[in-house]
Amino acid sequence: MATIVVVGAGVMGTAITYPVADNGHTVRLVGTHLDEDIIQSCREKRFHPRLKRAIHEAVVPYSYTEVGTAMQGADVVLLGVNSRGVHWAAEAIGPHLKPGQIIMMVTKGLESTDAGELQILPDVLAANLPADIRDKVDYAAVGGPSIAGELAARHQTSVVFVSRNAEILPRLRSYFSTDYYHIWTSTDLIGVEICVAMKNPYALAVGLAAGVLEKQESHAPDPASAKMHNYAAAIFAQGLAETAYLVQLLGGGLDTVFGLPGAGDLYVTTQGGRNSRMGRLIGLGRTYTDAVEEMPNETIEGVDAVLSIMPAVDAMMKRGKIASDALPLLVTLHRILTRGESVEFAFDRFFSKLPLNPPG
Amino acid sequence: MATIVVVGAGVMGTAITYPVADNGHTVRLVGTHLDEDIIQSCREKRFHPRLKRAIHEAVVPYSYTEVGTAMQGADVVLLGVNSRGVHWAAEAIGPHLKPGQIIMMVTKGLESTDAGELQILPDVLAANLPADIRDKVDYAAVGGPSIAGELAARHQTSVVFVSRNAEILPRLRSYFSTDYYHIWTSTDLIGVEICVAMKNPYALAVGLAAGVLEKQESHAPDPASAKMHNYAAAIFAQGLAETAYLVQLLGGGLDTVFGLPGAGDLYVTTQGGRNSRMGRLIGLGRTYTDAVEEMPNETIEGVDAVLSIMPAVDAMMKRGKIASDALPLLVTLHRILTRGESVEFAFDRFFSKLPLNPPG
Repeated sequence: MATIVVVGAGVMGTAITYPVADNGHTVRLVGTHLDEDIIQSCREKRFHPRLKRAIHEAVVPYSYTEVGTAMQGADVVLLGVNSRGVHWAAEAIGPHLKPGQIIMMVTKGLESTDAGELQILPDVLAANLPADIRDKVDYAAVGGPSIAGELAARHQTSVVFVSRNAEILPRLRSYFSTDYYHIWTSTDLIGVEICVAMKNPYALAVGLAAGVLEKQESHAPDPASAKMHNYAAAIFAQGLAETAYLVQLLGGGLDTVFGLPGAGDLYVTTQGGRNSRMGRLIGLGRTYTDAVEEMPNETIEGVDAVLSIMPAVDAMMKRGKIASDALPLLVTLHRILTRGESVEFAFDRFFSKLPLNPPG
Repeated sequence: MATIVVVGAGVMGTAITYPVADNGHTVRLVGTHLDEDIIQSCREKRFHPRLKRAIHEAVVPYSYTEVGTAMQGADVVLLGVNSRGVHWAAEAIGPHLKPGQIIMMVTKGLESTDAGELQILPDVLAANLPADIRDKVDYAAVGGPSIAGELAARHQTSVVFVSRNAEILPRLRSYFSTDYYHIWTSTDLIGVEICVAMKNPYALAVGLAAGVLEKQESHAPDPASAKMHNYAAAIFAQGLAETAYLVQLLGGGLDTVFGLPGAGDLYVTTQGGRNSRMGRLIGLGRTYTDAVEEMPNETIEGVDAVLSIMPAVDAMMKRGKIASDALPLLVTLHRILTRGESVEFAFDRFFSKLPLNPPG
């Protein structure tokens, strides 16, 4: 039996404890400094307030002050922090890591480096770990459509575990695999990380359509109550096309884009959740600043992702590494979020990198 | 100005008259023998009973008995019949076709030939036209996320016009292109036709999740009300992966699969409509026969597609042309619909044709 230490007691970090604890492994759940109330509830009531569910009977909760104790004998350290928490996590776990351990990330995101390059989070993490350990541990990640509350309910969930080191993957899969948690493995770390990071902004963009429709209906109702799913679907397809462009540019595989980490995860993210709700508010005409006030204390990963990757995208466009017409959806979304521009897309400029003749 | 004759006065055939009539072209709308009540309503009230909307002021309605008159001087004959109507349409328009005309199909589907091959509908149509004309007209089709009621409301809609003959595409696009109807062009007729045919069965399969959830909730409600979007998203991704397999096998382009005709159209088809409703009923545990009784007088294109393509898929599997493990979702869906098997997927057998290591 293995020992799995989850760092970050948010919904996703906690949800993934169910399959691995169901398999009989030792599972420790360590909150961050922002999770103290969650850990207290888990200890006193065995109840996770954000998952709204009893935690697994075998899971042992730890405060962030006990991370060193919790990490003793760990086979896998699983990072469930949000994208802003990676630097904190590197500092928290760094001193306690041992050679041969696997660090597995459910955290999604991309960062811009000072040199104007895009960096995937496992590489951000590694760069922030102590130099004497960073090359002695393995890095893995999870991609695919996995709403935390559904995994915790043991509803059918299908994901991809990914690592540059193919050797660790069968063991990692064996820890987590159950009859409701289906795991494929892949070595396309770049492809998976880009897909899972980009799905949040693109799901937010798909969500704009609902707000645009509501706004239009409020002053000019359509007699046949037509929706705007065609609008949303064009954005969905363009989001996937832009993801494919970035994945191929950075050396990932196209198959990852139309499998679970790309199309599957983008689909599930459009079916509800915070990014969609933020999209609706912006589509209704709110500025981002006003929309944030209507969703207090919520991390909108789609917004964080746009803000953290645009410096690198801008720099790469200036250097000619990214074609200036390749990412019109992302660029427009960035303007809407940061400059308060109204929600309007030049649809004719979509799909410029597919083998299609464009409109007009 | 061109003359566009739409044959088939259902929702999609009628919806596409709005952009082309907005552009000032002559537009004639010819009902089939099943559309007599629609044509009567269009003539007497200028109202389309299924679109629930006034028809375009410039559109002239015709009965199927007048198809010869309507087709005089046509530049484009647009087929809006459903997949069962292609043979009827070939007989109806065949005698009136003139060399140089373009036949454009919004009809979706695939057929099995007697030789056990899959045939796309433009080729089915051509084979059923009189021998002296079939090689003297051009064939084109439309793919992409386009809910009829939304196009008729002039909501933003993005599609691909496709033909093996690239020369006709700029002209065709110029007839239909407006500020709300965005048209890319492509010569990947095989890719587009497979995508638009397969999206209906796969959207039906995605819709099963809603019924499976409702059924489970009815006898074992989840305390945190978890949904089954992860379940649906795995099916969505597998549907796209199976589409990609078929498209590549038959010589189409992968880009078509993750663009508008594949991912975009599958997405929009999961957002409502008849295939989704049928999926929910089957997911709830109804047999197909019982489900049909709850949706009388409705054509479920997803069911028709499965039934019409499975003979060829079976034959191609027997010949080894299609790998026996390539299409587990389609094969399971066929069993559920035709043998009343319960809704249960071997998720672990999904994605066998992607470069992934499978579970277990």
